[in-house]
Amino acid sequence: MKLYFSPASPYARKVRVSALELGLAERIELLPVTLSPVSPNAQLREHNPLGKIPVLLTDSGEALYDSPVICEYLDALAGGGRLWPAAGPARWRALRRQALADGITDAAVLVRYEQTVRPEALRWSEWIEGQRLKIRTALAELERESLEGPFDIGAISIACALGYLDLRFAEERWREHQPRLAGWLAALAQRPSLASSTPA
Amino acid sequence: MKLYFSPASPYARKVRVSALELGLAERIELLPVTLSPVSPNAQLREHNPLGKIPVLLTDSGEALYDSPVICEYLDALAGGGRLWPAAGPARWRALRRQALADGITDAAVLVRYEQTVRPEALRWSEWIEGQRLKIRTALAELERESLEGPFDIGAISIACALGYLDLRFAEERWREHQPRLAGWLAALAQRPSLASSTPA
Repeated sequence: MKLYFSPASPYARKVRVSALELGLAERIELLPVTLSPVSPNAQLREHNPLGKIPVLLTDSGEALYDSPVICEYLDALAGGGRLWPAAGPARWRALRRQALADGITDAAVLVRYEQTVRPEALRWSEWIEGQRLKIRTALAELERESLEGPFDIGAISIACALGYLDLRFAEERWREHQPRLAGWLAALAQRPSLASSTPA
Repeated sequence: MKLYFSPASPYARKVRVSALELGLAERIELLPVTLSPVSPNAQLREHNPLGKIPVLLTDSGEALYDSPVICEYLDALAGGGRLWPAAGPARWRALRRQALADGITDAAVLVRYEQTVRPEALRWSEWIEGQRLKIRTALAELERESLEGPFDIGAISIACALGYLDLRFAEERWREHQPRLAGWLAALAQRPSLASSTPA
Protein backbone atom coordinates (compact mmCIF):
# COMPACT_ATOMS: atom_id res chain seq x y z
CA MET A 1 0.00 0.00 0.00
CA LYS A 2 1.01 3.61 -0.47
CA LEU A 3 0.00 6.61 1.60
CA TYR A 4 0.09 10.19 0.35
CA PHE A 5 0.74 12.29 3.42
CA SER A 6 2.61 15.24 4.87
CA PRO A 7 4.42 15.07 8.21
CA ALA A 8 2.38 17.98 9.63
CA SER A 9 -1.08 16.77 8.52
CA PRO A 10 -3.17 15.78 11.55
CA TYR A 11 -5.53 13.79 9.30
CA ALA A 12 -2.65 11.78 7.83
CA ARG A 13 -1.26 11.28 11.32
CA LYS A 14 -4.49 9.48 12.28
CA VAL A 15 -3.70 6.97 9.53
CA ARG A 16 -0.04 6.62 10.50
CA VAL A 17 -0.93 6.08 14.17
CA SER A 18 -3.61 3.53 13.21
CA ALA A 19 -1.18 1.64 10.97
CA LEU A 20 1.39 1.49 13.77
CA GLU A 21 -1.18 0.34 16.33
CA LEU A 22 -2.42 -2.35 13.95
CA GLY A 23 1.03 -3.62 12.97
CA LEU A 24 0.50 -2.57 9.34
CA ALA A 25 3.00 0.28 9.08
CA GLU A 26 5.65 -1.80 7.32
CA ARG A 27 3.22 -2.61 4.55
CA ILE A 28 2.64 1.07 3.76
CA GLU A 29 5.04 3.15 1.68
CA LEU A 30 4.88 6.81 2.71
CA LEU A 31 4.76 9.33 -0.16
CA PRO A 32 5.18 12.92 1.05
CA VAL A 33 3.34 15.69 -0.78
CA THR A 34 3.12 19.43 -0.23
CA LEU A 35 -0.05 21.29 -1.09
CA SER A 36 -2.46 24.00 -0.04
CA PRO A 37 -6.02 24.89 -1.07
CA VAL A 38 -4.65 27.41 -3.53
CA SER A 39 -1.68 25.38 -4.80
CA PRO A 40 -3.11 21.98 -5.77
CA ASN A 41 -0.95 18.95 -6.51
CA ALA A 42 -1.77 17.46 -9.92
CA GLN A 43 -0.46 13.97 -9.11
CA LEU A 44 -2.51 13.78 -5.92
CA ARG A 45 -5.65 14.93 -7.72
CA GLU A 46 -5.40 11.92 -10.02
CA HIS A 47 -6.10 9.78 -6.96
CA ASN A 48 -8.31 12.14 -4.95
CA PRO A 49 -10.15 14.76 -7.03
CA LEU A 50 -10.53 16.85 -3.88
CA GLY A 51 -6.76 17.27 -3.77
CA LYS A 52 -6.54 16.45 -0.07
CA ILE A 53 -4.38 14.16 2.00
CA PRO A 54 -4.33 11.47 3.26
CA VAL A 55 -4.97 9.17 0.30
CA LEU A 56 -4.27 5.43 0.56
CA LEU A 57 -3.59 3.36 -2.53
CA THR A 58 -4.52 -0.21 -1.67
CA ASP A 59 -2.56 -3.22 -2.91
CA SER A 60 -5.13 -3.57 -5.71
CA GLY A 61 -4.47 0.05 -6.73
CA GLU A 62 -7.74 1.50 -5.48
CA ALA A 63 -7.59 4.99 -3.95
CA LEU A 64 -9.26 5.48 -0.57
CA TYR A 65 -10.00 8.72 1.29
CA ASP A 66 -10.70 10.54 3.61
CA SER A 67 -8.98 9.71 6.93
CA PRO A 68 -12.00 7.96 8.59
CA VAL A 69 -12.41 5.71 5.55
CA ILE A 70 -8.71 4.81 5.42
CA CYS A 71 -8.54 4.19 9.17
CA GLU A 72 -11.59 1.90 9.10
CA TYR A 73 -10.17 0.06 6.07
CA LEU A 74 -6.89 -0.58 7.89
CA ASP A 75 -8.77 -1.80 10.97
CA ALA A 76 -10.73 -4.26 8.82
CA LEU A 77 -7.49 -5.36 7.14
CA ALA A 78 -6.11 -6.18 10.60
CA GLY A 79 -9.13 -8.31 11.44
CA GLY A 80 -11.66 -5.67 12.43
CA GLY A 81 -12.90 -4.40 15.77
CA ARG A 82 -9.48 -3.39 17.05
CA LEU A 83 -9.55 0.40 16.77
CA TRP A 84 -13.12 0.60 15.45
CA PRO A 85 -15.54 -0.96 17.94
CA ALA A 86 -18.27 -3.12 16.42
CA ALA A 87 -21.79 -1.66 16.26
CA GLY A 88 -23.17 -0.59 19.61
CA PRO A 89 -22.64 2.22 22.12
CA ALA A 90 -18.82 1.96 22.02
CA ARG A 91 -18.85 2.46 18.25
CA TRP A 92 -21.09 5.53 18.31
CA ARG A 93 -19.06 7.05 21.13
CA ALA A 94 -15.79 6.48 19.26
CA LEU A 95 -17.18 7.83 15.98
CA ARG A 96 -18.76 10.85 17.65
CA ARG A 97 -15.42 11.60 19.27
CA GLN A 98 -13.64 11.23 15.95
CA ALA A 99 -16.10 13.76 14.47
CA LEU A 100 -15.52 16.11 17.40
CA ALA A 101 -11.74 15.84 17.15
CA ASP A 102 -11.70 16.14 13.36
CA GLY A 103 -13.98 19.17 13.76
CA ILE A 104 -11.39 20.79 16.04
CA THR A 105 -8.77 20.10 13.39
CA ASP A 106 -11.00 21.41 10.58
CA ALA A 107 -11.53 24.67 12.46
CA ALA A 108 -7.83 24.97 13.34
CA VAL A 109 -6.82 24.40 9.72
CA LEU A 110 -9.26 27.08 8.57
CA VAL A 111 -7.76 29.51 11.09
CA ARG A 112 -4.29 28.58 9.87
CA TYR A 113 -5.26 29.20 6.23
CA GLU A 114 -6.80 32.53 7.19
CA GLN A 115 -3.71 33.62 9.13
CA THR A 116 -0.93 32.33 6.90
CA VAL A 117 -2.19 31.55 3.38
CA ARG A 118 -4.73 34.33 2.74
CA PRO A 119 -3.27 37.77 1.93
CA GLU A 120 -3.20 39.86 5.08
CA ALA A 121 -5.53 42.55 3.73
CA LEU A 122 -8.27 39.97 3.13
CA ARG A 123 -8.35 38.39 6.57
CA TRP A 124 -11.59 38.52 8.54
CA SER A 125 -11.38 38.54 12.32
CA GLU A 126 -14.99 37.38 12.82
CA TRP A 127 -14.29 34.25 10.78
CA ILE A 128 -11.25 33.49 12.91
CA GLU A 129 -13.23 34.13 16.08
CA GLY A 130 -16.06 31.87 14.91
CA GLN A 131 -13.64 29.01 14.27
CA ARG A 132 -11.82 29.62 17.55
CA LEU A 133 -15.13 29.41 19.39
CA LYS A 134 -15.70 25.95 17.89
CA ILE A 135 -12.26 24.86 19.08
CA ARG A 136 -12.67 26.26 22.59
CA THR A 137 -16.15 24.78 23.03
CA ALA A 138 -15.01 21.39 21.75
CA LEU A 139 -11.98 21.36 24.07
CA ALA A 140 -14.25 22.21 27.01
CA GLU A 141 -16.47 19.26 26.07
CA LEU A 142 -13.48 16.90 25.94
CA GLU A 143 -12.37 18.20 29.35
CA ARG A 144 -15.77 17.22 30.76
CA GLU A 145 -15.85 13.73 29.24
CA SER A 146 -14.16 10.72 30.70
CA LEU A 147 -11.68 9.62 28.07
CA GLU A 148 -10.61 6.51 29.92
CA GLY A 149 -10.98 3.33 27.92
CA PRO A 150 -9.39 1.65 24.93
CA PHE A 151 -7.13 3.56 22.54
CA ASP A 152 -9.66 3.53 19.70
CA ILE A 153 -10.23 5.76 16.68
CA GLY A 154 -11.89 8.33 18.92
CA ALA A 155 -8.84 8.58 21.16
CA ILE A 156 -6.47 8.58 18.17
CA SER A 157 -8.39 11.46 16.59
CA ILE A 158 -8.34 13.48 19.80
CA ALA A 159 -4.60 12.94 20.26
CA CYS A 160 -3.93 14.04 16.67
CA ALA A 161 -6.14 17.13 16.99
CA LEU A 162 -4.32 18.16 20.19
CA GLY A 163 -0.97 17.50 18.53
CA TYR A 164 -1.96 19.86 15.74
CA LEU A 165 -2.90 22.58 18.23
CA ASP A 166 0.51 22.11 19.86
CA LEU A 167 2.21 22.40 16.46
CA ARG A 168 0.37 25.45 15.11
CA PHE A 169 -1.31 27.17 18.06
CA ALA A 170 1.07 26.60 20.96
CA GLU A 171 0.42 30.18 22.12
CA GLU A 172 -3.17 29.22 22.87
CA ARG A 173 -1.97 27.15 25.84
CA TRP A 174 -4.98 24.81 25.73
CA ARG A 175 -3.60 22.85 28.68
CA GLU A 176 -4.22 25.75 31.07
CA HIS A 177 -7.97 25.47 30.59
CA GLN A 178 -8.08 21.69 30.14
CA PRO A 179 -5.79 20.17 32.78
CA ARG A 180 -7.58 16.82 32.79
CA LEU A 181 -7.32 16.53 29.01
CA ALA A 182 -3.66 17.51 29.26
CA GLY A 183 -3.09 14.69 31.75
CA TRP A 184 -4.83 12.23 29.46
CA LEU A 185 -2.55 13.20 26.54
CA ALA A 186 0.59 13.17 28.69
CA ALA A 187 -0.17 9.61 29.80
CA LEU A 188 -0.37 8.56 26.16
CA ALA A 189 2.55 10.55 24.82
CA GLN A 190 5.11 7.79 25.15
CA ARG A 191 3.01 5.37 23.17
CA PRO A 192 5.28 4.52 20.19
CA SER A 193 2.60 5.23 17.58
CA LEU A 194 2.13 8.76 18.90
CA ALA A 195 5.75 9.45 19.86
CA SER A 196 7.10 8.45 16.45
CA SER A 197 4.53 10.48 14.53
CA THR A 198 4.63 13.74 16.49
CA PRO A 199 4.90 16.62 14.00
CA ALA A 200 7.93 18.84 14.56
CA MET B 1 -35.29 10.87 18.36
CA LYS B 2 -34.75 14.52 17.48
CA LEU B 3 -32.80 15.95 14.58
CA TYR B 4 -31.40 19.46 14.51
CA PHE B 5 -31.37 20.45 10.84
CA SER B 6 -32.04 23.18 8.33
CA PRO B 7 -34.03 22.58 5.13
CA ALA B 8 -31.14 23.77 2.95
CA SER B 9 -28.36 21.79 4.67
CA PRO B 10 -27.04 19.07 2.33
CA TYR B 11 -25.49 17.24 5.30
CA ALA B 12 -28.80 17.16 7.17
CA ARG B 13 -30.53 16.06 3.97
CA LYS B 14 -28.35 12.94 3.93
CA VAL B 15 -29.84 12.06 7.32
CA ARG B 16 -33.42 12.85 6.27
CA VAL B 17 -33.06 10.76 3.09
CA SER B 18 -31.53 7.88 5.07
CA ALA B 19 -34.33 7.99 7.64
CA LEU B 20 -36.98 7.89 4.89
CA GLU B 21 -35.24 5.02 3.09
CA LEU B 22 -34.97 3.07 6.33
CA GLY B 23 -38.57 3.69 7.44
CA LEU B 24 -37.41 5.63 10.49
CA ALA B 25 -38.58 9.12 9.56
CA GLU B 26 -41.68 8.98 11.73
CA ARG B 27 -39.55 8.30 14.78
CA ILE B 28 -37.54 11.51 14.28
CA GLU B 29 -38.78 14.94 15.32
CA LEU B 30 -37.27 17.64 13.10
CA LEU B 31 -35.97 20.73 14.91
CA PRO B 32 -35.06 23.54 12.51
CA VAL B 33 -32.13 25.82 13.39
CA THR B 34 -30.51 28.72 11.60
CA LEU B 35 -26.83 29.38 11.98
CA SER B 36 -23.63 30.39 10.24
CA PRO B 37 -19.94 30.11 11.15
CA VAL B 38 -20.04 33.67 12.46
CA SER B 39 -23.47 33.53 14.15
CA PRO B 40 -23.41 30.41 16.34
CA ASN B 41 -26.51 28.92 17.93
CA ALA B 42 -26.12 28.50 21.68
CA GLN B 43 -28.73 25.76 22.04
CA LEU B 44 -27.16 23.71 19.29
CA ARG B 45 -23.69 24.08 20.82
CA GLU B 46 -24.93 22.40 23.98
CA HIS B 47 -25.32 19.24 21.94
CA ASN B 48 -22.55 19.71 19.39
CA PRO B 49 -19.69 21.94 20.56
CA LEU B 50 -18.74 22.48 16.92
CA GLY B 51 -22.05 24.26 16.38
CA LYS B 52 -22.83 22.38 13.19
CA ILE B 53 -25.86 20.53 11.89
CA PRO B 54 -27.04 17.83 11.66
CA VAL B 55 -27.13 16.65 15.26
CA LEU B 56 -29.25 13.65 16.27
CA LEU B 57 -30.46 13.21 19.83
CA THR B 58 -31.07 9.51 20.34
CA ASP B 59 -33.96 8.15 22.39
CA SER B 60 -31.54 7.83 25.31
CA GLY B 61 -30.64 11.53 24.95
CA GLU B 62 -27.16 11.04 23.53
CA ALA B 63 -26.05 13.54 20.89
CA LEU B 64 -24.58 12.12 17.69
CA TYR B 65 -22.80 13.97 14.85
CA ASP B 66 -21.60 14.43 12.11
CA SER B 67 -23.73 13.23 9.17
CA PRO B 68 -21.77 10.00 8.47
CA VAL B 69 -22.05 8.98 12.12
CA ILE B 70 -25.78 9.69 12.28
CA CYS B 71 -26.45 7.92 8.97
CA GLU B 72 -24.55 4.81 10.07
CA TYR B 73 -26.34 4.84 13.43
CA LEU B 74 -29.74 4.93 11.72
CA ASP B 75 -28.70 2.11 9.40
CA ALA B 76 -27.73 -0.01 12.40
CA LEU B 77 -31.00 0.89 14.12
CA ALA B 78 -32.84 -0.46 11.07
CA GLY B 79 -30.96 -3.76 11.25
CA GLY B 80 -27.67 -2.82 9.58
CA GLY B 81 -26.28 -3.40 6.11
CA ARG B 82 -29.13 -1.65 4.31
CA LEU B 83 -27.56 1.67 3.27
CA TRP B 84 -24.12 0.89 4.69
CA PRO B 85 -22.68 -2.24 3.08
CA ALA B 86 -20.92 -4.62 5.45
CA ALA B 87 -17.10 -4.67 5.36
CA GLY B 88 -15.67 -5.50 1.95
CA PRO B 89 -15.22 -3.77 -1.41
CA ALA B 90 -18.82 -2.47 -1.52
CA ARG B 91 -18.34 -0.74 1.83
CA TRP B 92 -15.07 0.98 0.89
CA ARG B 93 -16.54 2.10 -2.43
CA ALA B 94 -19.64 3.54 -0.73
CA LEU B 95 -17.60 5.28 1.96
CA ARG B 96 -15.09 6.66 -0.53
CA ARG B 97 -17.99 8.05 -2.55
CA GLN B 98 -19.52 9.57 0.56
CA ALA B 99 -16.17 11.29 1.24
CA LEU B 100 -15.99 12.51 -2.37
CA ALA B 101 -19.56 13.84 -2.31
CA ASP B 102 -19.19 15.43 1.13
CA GLY B 103 -15.95 16.97 -0.14
CA ILE B 104 -17.86 18.58 -3.02
CA THR B 105 -20.35 19.92 -0.49
CA ASP B 106 -17.58 21.14 1.84
CA ALA B 107 -15.96 23.07 -1.01
CA ALA B 108 -19.30 24.46 -2.21
CA VAL B 109 -20.19 25.63 1.30
CA LEU B 110 -16.81 27.37 1.63
CA VAL B 111 -17.43 29.14 -1.69
CA ARG B 112 -20.90 30.13 -0.48
CA TYR B 113 -19.49 31.54 2.78
CA GLU B 114 -16.86 33.46 0.84
CA GLN B 115 -19.41 34.91 -1.58
CA THR B 116 -22.31 35.67 0.76
CA VAL B 117 -21.19 35.74 4.41
CA ARG B 118 -17.73 37.35 4.20
CA PRO B 119 -17.65 41.10 3.66
CA GLU B 120 -17.12 41.83 -0.01
CA ALA B 121 -13.84 43.68 0.48
CA LEU B 122 -12.28 40.62 2.14
CA ARG B 123 -13.09 38.04 -0.53
CA TRP B 124 -10.20 36.20 -2.17
CA SER B 125 -10.66 35.00 -5.73
CA GLU B 126 -7.85 32.43 -5.51
CA TRP B 127 -9.57 30.73 -2.58
CA ILE B 128 -12.82 30.54 -4.52
CA GLU B 129 -10.98 29.23 -7.58
CA GLY B 130 -9.18 26.59 -5.47
CA GLN B 131 -12.47 25.31 -4.06
CA ARG B 132 -14.14 25.40 -7.47
CA LEU B 133 -11.31 23.30 -8.87
CA LYS B 134 -12.04 20.64 -6.24
CA ILE B 135 -15.71 20.64 -7.22
CA ARG B 136 -15.04 20.46 -10.95
CA THR B 137 -12.47 17.68 -10.60
CA ALA B 138 -14.74 15.68 -8.31
CA LEU B 139 -17.70 16.02 -10.67
CA ALA B 140 -15.51 14.84 -13.55
CA GLU B 141 -14.54 11.80 -11.48
CA LEU B 142 -18.20 11.00 -10.76
CA GLU B 143 -18.97 11.34 -14.48
CA ARG B 144 -16.32 8.70 -15.22
CA GLU B 145 -17.49 6.23 -12.57
CA SER B 146 -20.34 3.80 -13.02
CA LEU B 147 -22.84 4.75 -10.35
CA GLU B 148 -25.19 1.86 -11.07
CA GLY B 149 -25.94 -0.30 -8.08
CA PRO B 150 -27.83 -0.04 -4.81
CA PHE B 151 -28.98 3.30 -3.41
CA ASP B 152 -26.47 3.26 -0.57
CA ILE B 153 -24.84 5.99 1.54
CA GLY B 154 -22.47 6.76 -1.33
CA ALA B 155 -25.34 7.39 -3.74
CA ILE B 156 -27.30 9.35 -1.12
CA SER B 157 -24.30 11.59 -0.48
CA ILE B 158 -23.79 12.22 -4.21
CA ALA B 159 -27.48 13.06 -4.72
CA CYS B 160 -27.40 15.51 -1.79
CA ALA B 161 -24.18 17.16 -3.02
CA LEU B 162 -25.68 17.64 -6.50
CA GLY B 163 -28.89 18.96 -4.97
CA TYR B 164 -26.86 21.56 -3.10
CA LEU B 165 -25.13 22.64 -6.31
CA ASP B 166 -28.57 23.01 -7.91
CA LEU B 167 -29.75 25.09 -4.96
CA ARG B 168 -26.78 27.43 -4.62
CA PHE B 169 -24.79 27.23 -7.85
CA ALA B 170 -27.41 26.67 -10.55
CA GLU B 171 -25.53 29.05 -12.82
CA GLU B 172 -22.64 26.59 -12.93
CA ARG B 173 -24.77 24.24 -15.08
CA TRP B 174 -22.91 21.12 -13.95
CA ARG B 175 -25.17 18.95 -16.13
CA GLU B 176 -23.64 20.37 -19.32
CA HIS B 177 -20.27 18.84 -18.49
CA GLN B 178 -21.62 15.73 -16.74
CA PRO B 179 -24.50 14.39 -18.87
CA ARG B 180 -24.14 10.84 -17.57
CA LEU B 181 -24.23 12.02 -13.95
CA ALA B 182 -27.24 14.19 -14.80
CA GLY B 183 -29.03 11.14 -16.19
CA TRP B 184 -28.23 9.17 -13.07
CA LEU B 185 -29.72 11.88 -10.84
CA ALA B 186 -32.77 12.34 -13.07
CA ALA B 187 -33.55 8.63 -12.82
CA LEU B 188 -33.49 8.92 -9.02
CA ALA B 189 -35.31 12.23 -8.69
CA GLN B 190 -38.78 10.75 -8.22
CA ARG B 191 -37.62 8.57 -5.36
CA PRO B 192 -39.83 9.76 -2.46
CA SER B 193 -36.90 10.22 -0.06
CA LEU B 194 -35.18 12.59 -2.49
CA ALA B 195 -38.30 14.26 -3.89
CA SER B 196 -39.68 15.12 -0.47
CA SER B 197 -36.38 16.50 0.82
CA THR B 198 -35.33 18.65 -2.16
CA PRO B 199 -34.30 22.07 -0.85
CA ALA B 200 -36.23 24.94 -2.38
